Parts: sequence; C-alpha cells; structure tokens
Amino acid sequence: MSTSLDAISIDALCIPAPERKFLERWRQGNVSCINLTVAVWEDSRETIGTIGRWRRFIEANSDIVVQAISGEEIRAAEASGRTAIVFGFQNTSPCEHDIELFGTFRRLGVCVMQLTYNLQNFIGSGYWEERDSGISSRFGRKAIEEMNRQGIVIDLSHCGDRTTIEAIELSARPVAITHSNPREYVGTPTFGAGRLRTLEAMTRMAERGGVVGLSPNPHMTKERGQGTVRDFCAMVAWLVERIGIDHVGIGTDYCPGQPAGIRDFWRYGKWSREVVTTPIAAPGEGWPDWFASTADFQTIRTGLLDYGFTEADAAKIMGGNFFRLFSEGFEPLS
Amino acid sequence: MSTSLDAISIDALCIPAPERKFLERWRQGNVSCINLTVAVWEDSRETIGTIGRWRRFIEANSDIVVQAISGEEIRAAEASGRTAIVFGFQNTSPCEHDIELFGTFRRLGVCVMQLTYNLQNFIGSGYWEERDSGISSRFGRKAIEEMNRQGIVIDLSHCGDRTTIEAIELSARPVAITHSNPREYVGTPTFGAGRLRTLEAMTRMAERGGVVGLSPNPHMTKERGQGTVRDFCAMVAWLVERIGIDHVGIGTDYCPGQPAGIRDFWRYGKWSREVVTTPIAAPGEGWPDWFASTADFQTIRTGLLDYGFTEADAAKIMGGNFFRLFSEGFEPLS
Repeated sequence: MSTSLDAISIDALCIPAPERKFLERWRQGNVSCINLTVAVWEDSRETIGTIGRWRRFIEANSDIVVQAISGEEIRAAEASGRTAIVFGFQNTSPCEHDIELFGTFRRLGVCVMQLTYNLQNFIGSGYWEERDSGISSRFGRKAIEEMNRQGIVIDLSHCGDRTTIEAIELSARPVAITHSNPREYVGTPTFGAGRLRTLEAMTRMAERGGVVGLSPNPHMTKERGQGTVRDFCAMVAWLVERIGIDHVGIGTDYCPGQPAGIRDFWRYGKWSREVVTTPIAAPGEGWPDWFASTADFQTIRTGLLDYGFTEADAAKIMGGNFFRLFSEGFEPLS
Repeated sequence: MSTSLDAISIDALCIPAPERKFLERWRQGNVSCINLTVAVWEDSRETIGTIGRWRRFIEANSDIVVQAISGEEIRAAEASGRTAIVFGFQNTSPCEHDIELFGTFRRLGVCVMQLTYNLQNFIGSGYWEERDSGISSRFGRKAIEEMNRQGIVIDLSHCGDRTTIEAIELSARPVAITHSNPREYVGTPTFGAGRLRTLEAMTRMAERGGVVGLSPNPHMTKERGQGTVRDFCAMVAWLVERIGIDHVGIGTDYCPGQPAGIRDFWRYGKWSREVVTTPIAAPGEGWPDWFASTADFQTIRTGLLDYGFTEADAAKIMGGNFFRLFSEGFEPLS
C-alpha cells in the first residue's frame, strides 16, 4: 500500500464487453482504475442482472481485476498490480422514478452516474434533445441531493448544455464530465457538436472542483482518429490552460468487443421505432495508430512529458485528478 | 343493441378499489361506461399485475360489469344493463421508455392514457413542476404519434399548461381532459390552481374535437363540496357557453375504497423521501350531499334539465360526447 499517487492511472469511462482479453488491455496499459459502464438505457431489474454477471466475471478474473468503491480500494488494487473496476451508469434509468434506488445501486458498487443519456428523462435533458429543459423536475433536484449524500459522483458527459450547467450549480459536491472533449476546441465530431460539453460548462465545473476526462475516441477528436499523440496533448494543454491543471483527466470512452449494432441500441434504446444507423467504425475499432487500444494508455503520459508537462502535472492528468475526485466523491455523507 | 345513444352515461375518470360494493355505485347510477385508472406511478410489470387482477375481478362480477375497448362494446354493455369498464392510465409510467409498450398495453385493454401525472416524465411535464418543459422530448413526440396510431385517447388532466397546449397541437386525433374543472371558473382548489386546466387549453382542445370531463370532486370545485347540483350545473353552463355543447362531459374522479394513505402515494410515488400529507377527507369521502357517490350520477342529468338544458344537450354532457370521443378514438389507425 506504499504506492505513490503519481503512479495511478485512471480511465474515467469505458464500456468493454465482459471478456478477459479486453480487460487485459487496461492491465497492459497499467491502468489502476476504470469507470466501467453497466447501464445505458436499462431499468433496475436489467441492471441488477448486469451487475451480478460483472461481479461473477471479476471474481473469475481476480488475478487482473478487482471491484472498488473507494479511494483506498483503488490504491490497494494498484498496489496489487490489478485494475480496479468501479461500476458506473451512463443514465439514471436503473434508478427509475424511485429515490431509494440511488442508495440501492450505490450498495451494489455503482459510484458514478451520468444524469441523462442523450434524451429527456425524469431528471433532465440529454444533449440530443432539440429543447433542453434543464434540471426542471422536483425529482431531479432530489436525485442530485441523494447522489451527493450516497457518495455517487455525478457525470454530465451526455447531458444537454442547460442541464449540465444547472446540475453543476445544484450539486453540493464536485461533479465529473468523464468523457467529453471541449466543443470549442474540436468543432463538430461524428455525433454532432452537441455531444461535446462547452468550455463554459467545463470552467464552471472546475471552479467547483470537478474533473473532465478527455478522450482519444476518433468520433470526438478534431483529427477524427488521424492525429498524433502530440495532437491529443495539444488539446489537453489547451484545456489545462483554461480550466487549470487540477481539473483535466482521461476518459477514453473505449468500448471493445461490443457488437457493431450496439450503437443503434445506445442511440435508440427502446424509445424509437425508426433507427437511422450511422455508418462508422464498430465500437472500439478505428482508433488512432498511437492509441490502438487502452493497452497504449501510458503513451499519453509519454506524450505529455514530450509536450512539456512536468511529471507531477502529467500524473495529475493521467489519474491523480480523478483519484482525488473519486476518493472524495465516493465517500457517503454521514 | 337498440339502445339509444341518449341513454349512455359515461364517467370519464374514476379510481375505485376492486370491491363489488363500489362498482355497484356506478351501476346504481346507471353509468354505461367508466374509464377506470389502473396505473398512476407503476411500471410495466406492476401494471400488468394490476390489469390481470382487474380482469379476474371483472369476470367474477360479470353480472354488473364487463370490459370494453370500443364504442360497440360500450353500447353492448349498456344494452345488457352492465357498466363497461375501460382501462386507463393516469401516467405513461407503465410504458417506461419503450415505444412498443403503448401497443402492448392497448392490447390489454388500456384505451386512455394521461401523458404525465403531476411531474416531469419521458414525455412532458405534470402540473406540479415549477418549470413546465412542454413536450420537449423526441420520445414524447413519438409516443403521441404511437398513441394516435394504436387507438389510445390522450388525457391531459394532470399535465402542465405548456405540456397540455403542445400535446393538443401535436396530437393528430382529438384528446381528452377527463377530470378537470376550468381554472378561471373555480379559482384555487385544494391542490392548487395548477391542478385545473385553463380555459385556453379547453378551448383549443375543443377546437380539435376533444372533450373535457367536469367533476363534483370537492377538492376541485369552487364550493369545496358545499354546493348544490345547481352550482355544478352553473359550471357546466359556463363552460358549454365558451367551448360548445359537444365538448363537455363528466369525469367524477371518484375513488372509493382507497386507503387514506393512498393520497401520499399518488402525490409522492417513490420519487421523494419527504412526504407532506395534506389533511383532507379520505378519497371517495366528503363529497357534496347531492352527489354522495356515483350512485347519484343521474342527479346531474336532472340538474341539467332543471337548469334549462334540453334533453338532447343533457345527453351529450352525460355521456354522448365522451361516447363519440371514445368510440372514434379507441379505433386503431390502419
């Protein structure tokens, strides 16, 4: 347990299929901790099943991974040479319209929850709605309070702009944007500019102690997967200059092993009869040469040092900042 | 089947507990058809259970009630001296975020669905939100289309003002306000003025063929249960004068046999840890002398005739208008 914090690397958002060969890519990349998505549109019952299957899978692969729900457990995983898996939601759909389900899922190990996934839900609006109602609902305000209380870090990556800003202000504790690049830097990525959070949102989030995870996902970068690690580090530097060294991290959004059709599900869930398939690379494929998979995670550290970041600053970006947010944010309030 | 339409009486909204003695009150009142609420906050699984129990209950009481899903079946029920039960939702919660569930529940006999119950949901806002986002969501527009297609009459009684107006405009078929008195006439009832729909909404609804059900519920009337049948008929006349004789009906909101605590559930569902109980009469109790229960349903017809309505006009109000809306609106589009 003498691990230096400087060694900790965190991938603040990923969605691997439950196969050992995919988890090995984070281990090969010396990643200490990943926030692993276990729900996108699923309801409580479906998610309870998914979590059970993941728990069994983690047990069966306990030589390389271990579940974690605190900073201490993340440190312990790092010390034992394993990758800590934190369960996360990309939607509050598993909590349905039930205020008690936040605590229920926190007890099952879900420590990060994105408020909305693309669309309007009981709490607020996703980025893909034409009209963003903000945190317009009584339940939304209660849910944010409850997540604060239970020790669940709020994620705003896919939220609409108004919902994002209002959630930052309503949350008494720091929040995350686990996987979104800055809109003003990138321009329009594959899924439209709305998918990226604004510099204004990132700035306000940073002012209140939050962390944003930048991603080499080809569908979210300016270079569309054709760039170099230096290009990626230029984006990091651009954002660090604007919101500070303590508020930038990495969230790859890497999702290997998912079937090609999963994007239609992620986009349309069960809510639409019409499905317009975007003809792009399968999830986890088509990533830049320098980051073919998360096995290349430490390439970013090298890139940051080459770019001129100090070792201490590179360590913050690689995992130190998210470690601070996670270890503080996962603690329930008494 | 030679029943005259003039004899048809419809109660456009009620929530009895499943006991024979309560159903007998509609039969004693010669009510041909009731829209019976089978879901307020429940999800798909819970509602499937409720519907199953009601179906069994209806079978066990088939001498006085029968399920109906069309105008023809409502007429047949009336001809056989029984009360037709149409299943209705006061929320789209049972359809969750799944566009196919509208058709699924239509096949189980759910022919009326209120878009939102008090709060924000996937479709729009209820009246009890501080901010009404309207039909702000992609799902909301698709859901309205799907309800139109499946032959499900949209109910807006508990919706927010903006959601109400937008739903009226988005629906290609006439909609209902099954149980709300006009705000401008009543003023502030027990649950706040927001619970009542505006004359503007009722007017637009009428222009597109809809029907509003007026209620003697003491918590929604100007006289708070102290009025006479003439007072009630004065409200009917006030509204008929403004939106026309073809667009006003009766929706009692009568809910006998529910435990006193049910109001806390109706108000707070599972979404709040704090519950502020409103100290008012138990559901189904405290109604005006002239309408102690729905056994007195025909008192309204007599009252309307005394007030000066013609028999033909009284027949429209007592059930003819809702019969038109239901028999047309329950037909699926091919």
